[in-house]
Amino acid sequence: MTEKPMTDLDNLRVVLVATRNPLNIGAAARAMSNFGVRRLRVVNPYEVAFREARSAVGASGLLAKAEQYDGVAEAVADCKLVVGTTVAGPRRDLQHRLLRLDDGARAIKRQLKTARVALLFGSERYGLSNQEMSHCHWVMRIPTREEHGSMNLGQAVAVCLYELVRGRKASPAKAMSEKKEKTSPTSGELERLTQVLLEVLQASGYVKPRAVAAEEKLRRLVRRMELKANDAEVWLGMLRQIAWKLSAGE
Amino acid sequence: MTEKPMTDLDNLRVVLVATRNPLNIGAAARAMSNFGVRRLRVVNPYEVAFREARSAVGASGLLAKAEQYDGVAEAVADCKLVVGTTVAGPRRDLQHRLLRLDDGARAIKRQLKTARVALLFGSERYGLSNQEMSHCHWVMRIPTREEHGSMNLGQAVAVCLYELVRGRKASPAKAMSEKKEKTSPTSGELERLTQVLLEVLQASGYVKPRAVAAEEKLRRLVRRMELKANDAEVWLGMLRQIAWKLSAGE
Repeated sequence: MTEKPMTDLDNLRVVLVATRNPLNIGAAARAMSNFGVRRLRVVNPYEVAFREARSAVGASGLLAKAEQYDGVAEAVADCKLVVGTTVAGPRRDLQHRLLRLDDGARAIKRQLKTARVALLFGSERYGLSNQEMSHCHWVMRIPTREEHGSMNLGQAVAVCLYELVRGRKASPAKAMSEKKEKTSPTSGELERLTQVLLEVLQASGYVKPRAVAAEEKLRRLVRRMELKANDAEVWLGMLRQIAWKLSAGE
Repeated sequence: MTEKPMTDLDNLRVVLVATRNPLNIGAAARAMSNFGVRRLRVVNPYEVAFREARSAVGASGLLAKAEQYDGVAEAVADCKLVVGTTVAGPRRDLQHRLLRLDDGARAIKRQLKTARVALLFGSERYGLSNQEMSHCHWVMRIPTREEHGSMNLGQAVAVCLYELVRGRKASPAKAMSEKKEKTSPTSGELERLTQVLLEVLQASGYVKPRAVAAEEKLRRLVRRMELKANDAEVWLGMLRQIAWKLSAGE
């Protein structure tokens, strides 16, 4: 543990149990990297798979630093919370408390502030066995369709980590400033736009001269566009050019 | 459309643009099946990849029924909302409104109650190009680490669809107010509007003939108007009249 922990996520250990396919180990590692989770542990992987995954072109430092264990007990020994994962399905022998993924993620995030948490993913074909599950405090379920009983490992890891990361940087200040970035046009600007549009439509014969209701309709139409100031300017420029061309053609 | 629609999700079209790797098409299809999304469209895939994905062992009916298109415009023509996807990163040329994945998913779910929505995923290496993006109303961003600039396609699809499925419970009060909303135009209708506007601007000299970027800019401008279907029709009528007048004056 030489690197300084930068976020709560550094307390998370993703634990792949009995993974068979090297591509899946690599895919799980990529999902971890995408969401800023750096500590991978593998339990009893198919030996060749683990070697291949590590030596794959582009394999990350994350894979190189992955820790290997012979059993779940050893892999989670230093963790205060151990959470299993499963998909929806007709698994009737599940002995654990089952949480929705979003509820589970909330509980995990609380724990990560102060302690290590292990998140377990089972083998591609069978998921976590009851023996492996027995190390878990509870299990969280990815809300997949029951009829489709399995899920790609890399995708399962991606979805769970997304749920952990989701909304973490919800800085309201930032959202505010982004909203302010694009200002609305003034009513005066919108009215100029309306008038040029009216002029163009009269010149083109779409609107009869002195059709009073038409002007009101156009005014409402322009307001309904809910233009930002910069777009309003673009529209005004376009319409002025059209107006000029129409008058030049007369 | 012989199957009866079972959920709002039947209004969703997952659109893979220029996908290169057959494994990724298959992975996207599996993620869709996991989360109960059945309609896949592919735009200009690497031909061999699409064939391979379709003929893969265990390929689902979903893949067999995938529809193939030559361009984004055709693939989204019948959709009323078109949403692009991207990951966090140093992409500085993004011209679109960027929504957080959860905010975007909320907007998509509202639209799915009454209309088709297209969700676009770009190629593995480059994501969506600006030209491809220009068909989108807005873009939603998967909150990945900025330093890790790309994401596995199947994982990206899984995370986005999870966010759409997560906690699906329609609050009755909300559904009521949404019913009152006027319907949006289809992408096909917006594209017609874009093309007539382009024609008018070329005829008036605002846009140079064969100015490629201009078309993309106009496409985005038109999508930003967030027109309702009836207003889109009004605009189309006005622009057609202007186009006619401009051509008559020549």
